[in-house]
Amino acid sequence: MTHENFPSVLKALHECMEACNHCYDACLQEEDVNAMVECIRLDRECADICAFLEQSITRNSPYMQEIAKVCITACEECADSCEAHHHDHCQKCAKACRKCADECRKLIA
Amino acid sequence: MTHENFPSVLKALHECMEACNHCYDACLQEEDVNAMVECIRLDRECADICAFLEQSITRNSPYMQEIAKVCITACEECADSCEAHHHDHCQKCAKACRKCADECRKLIA
Amino acid sequence: MTHENFPSVLKALHECMEACNHCYDACLQEEDVNAMVECIRLDRECADICAFLEQSITRNSPYMQEIAKVCITACEECADSCEAHHHDHCQKCAKACRKCADECRKLIA
Amino acid sequence: MTHENFPSVLKALHECMEACNHCYDACLQEEDVNAMVECIRLDRECADICAFLEQSITRNSPYMQEIAKVCITACEECADSCEAHHHDHCQKCAKACRKCADECRKLIA
Repeated sequence: MTHENFPSVLKALHECMEACNHCYDACLQEEDVNAMVECIRLDRECADICAFLEQSITRNSPYMQEIAKVCITACEECADSCEAHHHDHCQKCAKACRKCADECRKLIA
Repeated sequence: MTHENFPSVLKALHECMEACNHCYDACLQEEDVNAMVECIRLDRECADICAFLEQSITRNSPYMQEIAKVCITACEECADSCEAHHHDHCQKCAKACRKCADECRKLIA
Repeated sequence: MTHENFPSVLKALHECMEACNHCYDACLQEEDVNAMVECIRLDRECADICAFLEQSITRNSPYMQEIAKVCITACEECADSCEAHHHDHCQKCAKACRKCADECRKLIA
Repeated sequence: MTHENFPSVLKALHECMEACNHCYDACLQEEDVNAMVECIRLDRECADICAFLEQSITRNSPYMQEIAKVCITACEECADSCEAHHHDHCQKCAKACRKCADECRKLIA
């Protein structure tokens, strides 16, 4: 079993990392940054664990499923935080996070 | 300027990271691992710098171009090493590395 | 609570990452690399998760304890693999891994 | 030549990563986060490249000197940004960044 068996989770992880980092960058440019603190923090957490899991899956790591569990938590909490904001980058990020959490759940099923 | 201006370099980086990690995993399963030592080493170097650059671009890092220069070196040297082996995973990896180096050159142009 | 409350786990993670990466580098220079394949693989796994956890703790991540659980597994399995080899770099790595696993257990206690 | 030849740069990188991530965490808890945006951004940049270079040196990467050049830029710019703020975490971070840049310069000398 190799990374080629996991195209949909790799795509979802990549898109989630991208959306989280874009949201992080955009939050730091908002007028009221104090209101975005939790988003900024969780965007970084989520981007970092998604990037880590991508690498783990593609190198056929024995720990990919354990790491996926942490990734699900980070994705869901980042989505919760982003959904509370009307900004386009937050809404897009929340969707990418939910999608990614769903794909990670398939990986550990 | 955001990561959305860079779809082709992000795609190339992601595919290169994936090909390098798959090649690393496959090299460690070859019959004669001694013959694959340089590939294993450069696959990891290349995967790690590609993953790092992906994150840098998507968070709009001021250092993305400096990091891209290191990535070009790593991609070209990994491709040189992989091209010398007939294994399918090495040939695919070499192609992904050359493509990625080309895209990184556009980023710093 | 900040990273300053965790000096001993940060020291252990740093030394474990260092020992694992040195062991990885040294394994790839051994005469019979085929015998070292599992060590090479687990050294990289362990170094990467240790480095990831170091960053998580120092940025006060809400996921540091979940990540520490994965780190304990990686440390113990890397130690098991390294202990089976007489090389000095493997023996040193195994000790650093056991120490790190112990410190991670304190973090989640 | 292995990582054991580089104890002072590894110590400086580790302390800089730690100081940057602590400063990032503390900046996000300041009363006026808008005033800290550049620090937050450069703290993450600097922590990430320091962590990356630590791993590169310890695995005896052929690219450690090229990566060190990027690290010097990130350290100096993060120090410039942090020095402008009176917060204790910013002042400590600036010192760790300058020290780290000095050690990286020795690595490429």
